[in-house]
Amino acid sequence: MINLTSLMEFRNFMVALPQSNKLIEEKAIERNSKLTKPNGSLGHLEEIAIWYASWSGTTKPKLDAPQVAIFAGNHGIAAHPGVSAFPAEVTQQMVLNFKAGGAAINQLSKTFGAKMDVYPLDLDKPTSDFTKSFAMTESELLKSLQAGWEAVDPSADLFVAGEMGIGNTTSASAIAAALYGGGAKAWVGRGTGIDDRGLQLKRQVVDAGLLFHKDILMDPLVVLQALGGREIAAMVGAIASARARSIPVLLDGFICSAAAAVLHKINPKALDHVQAGHVSAEGAHAQILKRLEKNPLLALDLRLGEGSGATLAIGVLKGSLACLSGMATFSEAQVSQS
Amino acid sequence: MINLTSLMEFRNFMVALPQSNKLIEEKAIERNSKLTKPNGSLGHLEEIAIWYASWSGTTKPKLDAPQVAIFAGNHGIAAHPGVSAFPAEVTQQMVLNFKAGGAAINQLSKTFGAKMDVYPLDLDKPTSDFTKSFAMTESELLKSLQAGWEAVDPSADLFVAGEMGIGNTTSASAIAAALYGGGAKAWVGRGTGIDDRGLQLKRQVVDAGLLFHKDILMDPLVVLQALGGREIAAMVGAIASARARSIPVLLDGFICSAAAAVLHKINPKALDHVQAGHVSAEGAHAQILKRLEKNPLLALDLRLGEGSGATLAIGVLKGSLACLSGMATFSEAQVSQS
Repeated sequence: MINLTSLMEFRNFMVALPQSNKLIEEKAIERNSKLTKPNGSLGHLEEIAIWYASWSGTTKPKLDAPQVAIFAGNHGIAAHPGVSAFPAEVTQQMVLNFKAGGAAINQLSKTFGAKMDVYPLDLDKPTSDFTKSFAMTESELLKSLQAGWEAVDPSADLFVAGEMGIGNTTSASAIAAALYGGGAKAWVGRGTGIDDRGLQLKRQVVDAGLLFHKDILMDPLVVLQALGGREIAAMVGAIASARARSIPVLLDGFICSAAAAVLHKINPKALDHVQAGHVSAEGAHAQILKRLEKNPLLALDLRLGEGSGATLAIGVLKGSLACLSGMATFSEAQVSQS
Repeated sequence: MINLTSLMEFRNFMVALPQSNKLIEEKAIERNSKLTKPNGSLGHLEEIAIWYASWSGTTKPKLDAPQVAIFAGNHGIAAHPGVSAFPAEVTQQMVLNFKAGGAAINQLSKTFGAKMDVYPLDLDKPTSDFTKSFAMTESELLKSLQAGWEAVDPSADLFVAGEMGIGNTTSASAIAAALYGGGAKAWVGRGTGIDDRGLQLKRQVVDAGLLFHKDILMDPLVVLQALGGREIAAMVGAIASARARSIPVLLDGFICSAAAAVLHKINPKALDHVQAGHVSAEGAHAQILKRLEKNPLLALDLRLGEGSGATLAIGVLKGSLACLSGMATFSEAQVSQS
């Protein structure tokens, strides 16, 4: 457990990350090659099962205790016309819906046996408008990182970070543009469903933010403070916290992946414990995943957030582990090899 | 229940197919539009949940009793060098592995709560070499169609047809080429993993079969008899049988989809109760799915058969139904709409 009183502590953690178990990885690769199927015929399933094994510390892993944590935050920039198709009060309303069990993520968590918790982060205090100041003070950033860090259950065997925050595709686009360049045009999409005029306004907001903060864009954590939101910072903290505990992570959509990109920019090995659960219909998501070198498990045109795509991918991961852990080998089953 | 004493009975069934419930479909579309999520934000999940509802007869469907049936057959053409990377005795050995619970499909069926049965079809009598005669007599074809028809459990709420048969990608390629043209080159791939020389030989076998049977290629059921195998014919019978009972079907890979193509060629409405579970790494599979106008749920580079890809997709379908059936509406949850 870290106790974040300054960003330096987080920076220090990020240079000394725990690694996967290479010996287990080799053994899992060997076991996989002996199972009763043509070599490679389970495709992407083989890769993710071996990856999961290398983090679980066993060649026959199971997935029994996945955790979904949903972080919610409000955004100063949501007040700009065009940024979202929904009013800002929807963030709080959806938090109540999550708690009452009525949202998509509730149904998906139940379907795949995941424990689900919601973390509303100072919803009555939206972040500051990033076109005019830093979105968060350093103390607000630290508090949000810490909230994410603490949300990870040490006994979980998989972690999914979800988010809710009206306006947060705008914030995520600004972060992606700050980290990778290309300006608003390369990174701004329609989010929950804005029209052409809205898209134009949303791009103006992002470009205004990039211009205002042009002098700090080389430091990923300061980018997060300047352009992010509490829920995005919490996802950054949570993905790092999962790494501290060697808990594998499935990424959800564009906003979650923008949070992961902050970690990846600090240390290119920071996402070794992470796979992409899906690629969303938000165009820039595929672009971020390319930068993160992650090949998504699902591509179903989801664009909901809440951790929905990643939670759906738990099923695929469970299937892959069942094969690696449960299948007979050629010699056990007395099947002839090619 | 039909009792196939002639192909005419099957042909008669194929012109008078039961349809989905349009009223339920409209109600499911309406319910979906009121759920607490931006319109369309669950992408492909929304479409398949509505599709499933229209066949289940309820706007809040559940999926509790999926059935996986694996049909196994042996092929005369497997004796040609190059047709398969594995010896023909592997069909029987894998049947024993399925029965003992050691194959990939056993693990996947367990993971997604599916009942799984295996149907070995006269494994000691391979079909005839289709480069020299019809693969099956009419009586063998009828017996195989009937075996598939009877395998479908009337109480199942989803059906997956899997297959095992050394040499059957060759047979499936020949069927696809017969139905859609383009010759062997357009439809022959590497199956379980043959090399370049094998690929060339496999193409020669398929082209020889197409030439030998060139006069009967306009009749899909006769194509099945001439170029198919028992397990492929059984899948044809099973997919039709599921339709007779309004049981939705998920297609597996290339061989299963070639079986479905026979039905689709007889009647373009024949696969309305069917979705594509996945698109496999066997190149021609994507081409068949395009002809069938099916958009696959998964694309994970599987190329195993056994029903593995379709069974994995049960998880996605379950997730989609959980959302349609379990989510709160905007008014129930008191969430503001855009």
